[in-house]
Order: sequence, then C-alpha cells, then structure tokens
Amino acid sequence: MERIAIDMDEVITHFSANCLELFNEEFNTDYTTEDLQGKLLVELDARFADKVDQYLANESFFLDLQVIRDSQEVIQKLSAHYDIYIVTAAMEFPASLAPKYQWLKQHFSFLNDKNFVFCGDKSIIHADYLIDDTPSCLDTFTGQGILFTAPHNRDISGYTRLNNWQEVARYFLKV
Amino acid sequence: MERIAIDMDEVITHFSANCLELFNEEFNTDYTTEDLQGKLLVELDARFADKVDQYLANESFFLDLQVIRDSQEVIQKLSAHYDIYIVTAAMEFPASLAPKYQWLKQHFSFLNDKNFVFCGDKSIIHADYLIDDTPSCLDTFTGQGILFTAPHNRDISGYTRLNNWQEVARYFLKV
Repeated sequence: MERIAIDMDEVITHFSANCLELFNEEFNTDYTTEDLQGKLLVELDARFADKVDQYLANESFFLDLQVIRDSQEVIQKLSAHYDIYIVTAAMEFPASLAPKYQWLKQHFSFLNDKNFVFCGDKSIIHADYLIDDTPSCLDTFTGQGILFTAPHNRDISGYTRLNNWQEVARYFLKV
Repeated sequence: MERIAIDMDEVITHFSANCLELFNEEFNTDYTTEDLQGKLLVELDARFADKVDQYLANESFFLDLQVIRDSQEVIQKLSAHYDIYIVTAAMEFPASLAPKYQWLKQHFSFLNDKNFVFCGDKSIIHADYLIDDTPSCLDTFTGQGILFTAPHNRDISGYTRLNNWQEVARYFLKV
C-alpha cells in the first residue's frame, strides 16, 4: 500500500487564521485570510514576529484550531487505499507536542496514533507522497511532493499543486 | 553526509532498569538487569503487564532515566561525521512526549532539536542506519539496521549487532 504523509498546519488546521484572530483581538486590526495572499504573517505585519511565538506557547492555541474543510472526509476515504501518516514539525514549539496529539485524537480519531510523526526536519520522512504547504519541506523530501495551497504560497510555482481537499481526492482516488 | 537514526529506550536510556527499580520498591523484589537476560519485563514477572503502563504515565519516569554508558561521548563524535536523528516511539504514551523532549535537551544538548523524531511506527524513517534494540523495528526499516544489545534481545540472531557504544564508535568511525 502506498504511503501519504500529510502536514498539519495550513493543510488540515487553520493555523494562520487562528493567529490572525488572536492578533486582531489584541491590536484591534481587521486582517483577514485574504490579506495573507502571497505573504507570510510577518510580511503582513512585522509585529507577528514576536506574537506568533507567544500565541503558540499557549497550549490552548492548538486545541482551538479549526479543521480545514473536507480534510476529515477525504483523509478517511484515502485511508482505505493508502497508509496515511500525519507528519508535523513540532520540535520548535515543544509546548505544542501534547496539544497537537490531543487535537489529532479529537478530529482524526479514525487514524491510528502510531501514524502520527512529530519531527523537525521532514527530510527524515520515508513515504511515497508528502502533502505540505511549505515549499522547503517538499524540496528535501525524497518522494512525490505536493504543494497544498495556502494563502502564503499562492504565487509559488514549480510544484505539483492541489488547491483543496476535493482536489486531493480526485488526484489520489480518481473520483 | 550519511544519516544515523538512534532509538532512545535501551539504546541511550536505561528504560528497563528504571522499571525494575520501581517494581522492586513496590513489591519488595530484588530483580536485577541480569534477570532480564533473554526476557522481556513481562516474561520475568507477569505483574509488569499492568505496572509498566502505570510507571510510564508518570512524567517523572522519563525525566529520571539514566543515560547509557558512553552514548553521549560517542554520539557527539559521530555527529561530526554523520547526521544524527533521535527517533523514539512516543505515541503509545502521549504523556511521554514532553518529558522525552526535556530529557533529550538535558542529556544531549549538543544535538539540534530539529533532529528529534517522535513517532509510532519506525518504517516511516528515512535514514541510512537505524540503531535499535527491538528487532521488529529493524525489520521494517529500509536502510541498514543495527541491533543494539539489550538484555531482552541477547538470544536473537540474524542482525548486525553492536554490544555497546564503544562498538558503535568502532563500527562507524573505524577507531
């Protein structure tokens, strides 16, 4: 059975949207995801440089993350035909380890937790496919990398790109 | 640079020895590591079946683990010539995620925490070598597996075996 590794933030979790919401509350701004097109948070507003670390240090940040549309249904369908691994960079924010685990158990309870991988550098992952929103993660991956569209990567070319989970379903299941 | 993945329990941490110590205190037994030759804990005393889960649920269990002799010095030397990843099964005991991270930062502070991998199934690891005390982990690994001697695996054959960290140094550094 072929193996698909799937990133968490911006692929199955609305990571940036949560950062925007907390920032808007604190600074009385009204940034939306639309404002992030082609930009990282810190390029939208330099104050994010300090703030993101602060938000992530709070355990509830990860527990509150919204699930990206259709990801649950499509991953459940994919898991009948592929070995699914959730592969997330967690070592930069050790406080995220436990809440990321809890979030996965809550929202993707149909996956075996033996298939969760918390790492730093994704070049250590041995899989056939990696679905990730970060081009540099795909660059060092040895299988087929797939760029999952997120606001920040909209203008980047040179990767196999899928824009949403319905496109992922069509790519892997030909449906 | 070639990449060596290194397991934690029984390879760099005295996991079983800590279990024996806690068990001896509780049941007034006097088991030693010698009694574990060729056996798993549960084969030595069936009461370990319940007890190990109970010990591991306590965060301090991992923080208290002793470092296996010469592992720090040899891994530091290896890291000049190889990319070193510490790869540990942590998903069965989610309470171990944070204390395993802390233990590594304390005892292997010279390693970059981006090179820590917490997973379930080690077949997901892409590396040239895996040093592990558990034969089944080596069976699904696609690189060169190396069985690190622990009491429980003493009688198992069919693997490249290294008995201690000085032998690891000779194998990889030809010293």
